[in-house]
Amino acid sequence: MTRIGVIGAGIAGLHLGLALRAHDVDVAIYTDLSADAVAAGPLLNTVAHHHHTLERERALGVCHWEADDYGYGCHHHCVVGAGPDPVRFRGDFEYPSVVVDHRLYLPRLMADFEERGGELVVATVAAEALPRLASEHDLLVICTGRAGLATLFGRRADKSPYEVPQRRLSAGIYHGIAYPQPTGVGVHMSLGHGELLELPITSREGRATVLLFENIPGGGLDELVDRPYSDDSRAYERLVLDVLEAHYPACFERVDRPSFGLQAPRDILQGALTPIVREDWAIVEDGRIALAVGDAHTVVDPVNGQGANSASHSAWVAAQAILDDYGFDERFARRVARDREAVVLGVSDWTNMTLNPPPQMVELLFAMASSKPVCHPDRQADALATPERTAAFIARWSGAG
Amino acid sequence: MTRIGVIGAGIAGLHLGLALRAHDVDVAIYTDLSADAVAAGPLLNTVAHHHHTLERERALGVCHWEADDYGYGCHHHCVVGAGPDPVRFRGDFEYPSVVVDHRLYLPRLMADFEERGGELVVATVAAEALPRLASEHDLLVICTGRAGLATLFGRRADKSPYEVPQRRLSAGIYHGIAYPQPTGVGVHMSLGHGELLELPITSREGRATVLLFENIPGGGLDELVDRPYSDDSRAYERLVLDVLEAHYPACFERVDRPSFGLQAPRDILQGALTPIVREDWAIVEDGRIALAVGDAHTVVDPVNGQGANSASHSAWVAAQAILDDYGFDERFARRVARDREAVVLGVSDWTNMTLNPPPQMVELLFAMASSKPVCHPDRQADALATPERTAAFIARWSGAG
Repeated sequence: MTRIGVIGAGIAGLHLGLALRAHDVDVAIYTDLSADAVAAGPLLNTVAHHHHTLERERALGVCHWEADDYGYGCHHHCVVGAGPDPVRFRGDFEYPSVVVDHRLYLPRLMADFEERGGELVVATVAAEALPRLASEHDLLVICTGRAGLATLFGRRADKSPYEVPQRRLSAGIYHGIAYPQPTGVGVHMSLGHGELLELPITSREGRATVLLFENIPGGGLDELVDRPYSDDSRAYERLVLDVLEAHYPACFERVDRPSFGLQAPRDILQGALTPIVREDWAIVEDGRIALAVGDAHTVVDPVNGQGANSASHSAWVAAQAILDDYGFDERFARRVARDREAVVLGVSDWTNMTLNPPPQMVELLFAMASSKPVCHPDRQADALATPERTAAFIARWSGAG
Repeated sequence: MTRIGVIGAGIAGLHLGLALRAHDVDVAIYTDLSADAVAAGPLLNTVAHHHHTLERERALGVCHWEADDYGYGCHHHCVVGAGPDPVRFRGDFEYPSVVVDHRLYLPRLMADFEERGGELVVATVAAEALPRLASEHDLLVICTGRAGLATLFGRRADKSPYEVPQRRLSAGIYHGIAYPQPTGVGVHMSLGHGELLELPITSREGRATVLLFENIPGGGLDELVDRPYSDDSRAYERLVLDVLEAHYPACFERVDRPSFGLQAPRDILQGALTPIVREDWAIVEDGRIALAVGDAHTVVDPVNGQGANSASHSAWVAAQAILDDYGFDERFARRVARDREAVVLGVSDWTNMTLNPPPQMVELLFAMASSKPVCHPDRQADALATPERTAAFIARWSGAG
């Protein structure tokens, strides 16, 4: 009987495991953190689940935070530095998105996975253990960037334009900020300095606001990353308010100073990441392959809020291939690579372009603001590839209703 | 406004043109033969339209020969030479297929195309004319193997294992053969000599039978190709009967000698082809690309009856990409290549393997005979790639109902 080993219990590993269990495939997920440890731990990320991800969750029967109750349906854009006044516009979605703290989300899906007969093994898998693990499964799928396992898969230089982080990040869950109306994500840009994503999150204390500062290195806002929150929480919160006031006025105007502050000391994440695309698979032992999914395959900067969605898509494609195919060899792995390429590499290319936008990005942004059909996360890299493509894309889709 | 130029009015060119007209895209099809010339001409091919092709025809509103009235739902297999007696078995389809003479089919779809606002230009397009034609259209799609246009696209050695034909062909429309019951295609193999496909065709004279002899070069049946039918029609028909009697008894037993004969002198095609896969696109002029679809891209031996289906799929993928995309550049062409690869190259690889089958082909054939889910035209190349894959494929799908 086919037995699949999945390493990593983030959204990729869990969506993959649940999709396989829905067809009675024997599957074990190995994770270094128990559900309780995840729930009690530090902030993991601040990612939105967009429509296609929610659709997969509905198909899996794990959409516990439905968009009707927990969702939002637009982006409120504010660009500072392009002219004398901030430029403000709104982009409405066709379908709503949801942000839920993964310290709620992942433990709940771990429980779903176990209730449905999946085996959840809490143990750190070191690279040295892979050959043994490979021999115990028909296929290993690596769904984590942790514990050095991702380095099994070579870096794809053609899809990894950066050697160092392009943004320095400070992400925290705050209270004391009124939601914009209609409820939506604030997408704030301060040209030359960075971006702020302001997200309506459902956390263990109910609804709150994520402030995800994407700071351009050397752009004047590094202190948000260099100064650890834990050193002086009051001073850090004052710094946040100063940055909001100076750079992100469309957020600052909704702050209630007396109640403003981080939700809890473990609700902040400061650091940076280098975006990378790795090879789709590696040979582990006796010709057995390990497939890279999610963070093991592609790490995108959070600036476009696509990481979890890309990982979920990648897991879904892998699950379909496992259910369809037979013989988990390189032909199988090439199929997975081909089937996910348009979305996963499209999202990665686009996000990398967003970090250092070409001139035609401005044109595209304004077109997106006025025409929903122009808004395709997995097509923007195509649309931006050349100025001619951007013009043709806008011409093609702006009239499409 | 976007204007697409399609060269070739076979099934690929017409399905592409009709799909684009369904979305009001300005499209011209260039063909060297008018509808009347096609209708009055020699036999073009003898290909079955399988379910997915019929589904595309239904979507386009051009399924004029519906499977309920014109279809068949099984293969009657007979293998001679594997043991003392012929081995006979039947494979039932999930959905019926249809064979209609393309001298009826293509003119009817040409009329549909013109009625729907498509421009049909009857003119031979020489290779020298391509740069001018390219400058008059946003995209050229070459859908014909004729007039040397296909040589614009380089041969893919990795997907083209043969330098010479692997079968020598004689295809004709005959009367005087009772259909097998239930009505279906006869798939006759005479090991070491060749194959005979016996197809229930709808032709201008109503229902008749195609005999498509696939003769292994030097396998004793070359005379079916070397002796032109027109030299002595009676002698040729006697030769056909002799071959049926000696090699294809499951067909011969249904022949009515007095009424047996070719339907008309222009209803026979004798010759050979070398299977080839060509590059997906070429640069014509000023960076403008020409896309290869159908015979310009992939020529498969007719032994598996997949040519028109592969061409229709390829056209469908190209149409979707044209409707979705913007900027007909190499990114666009790469997308088409990726989106059709699984089916088009899968079918080509499988057909090439059928011509010189690996040992595991026998195992797979018997599994196919007893389990419908094992029968996937676009998966057989995957299933046959290694003996391990064949075993795993059969294990995976044989139990699947």
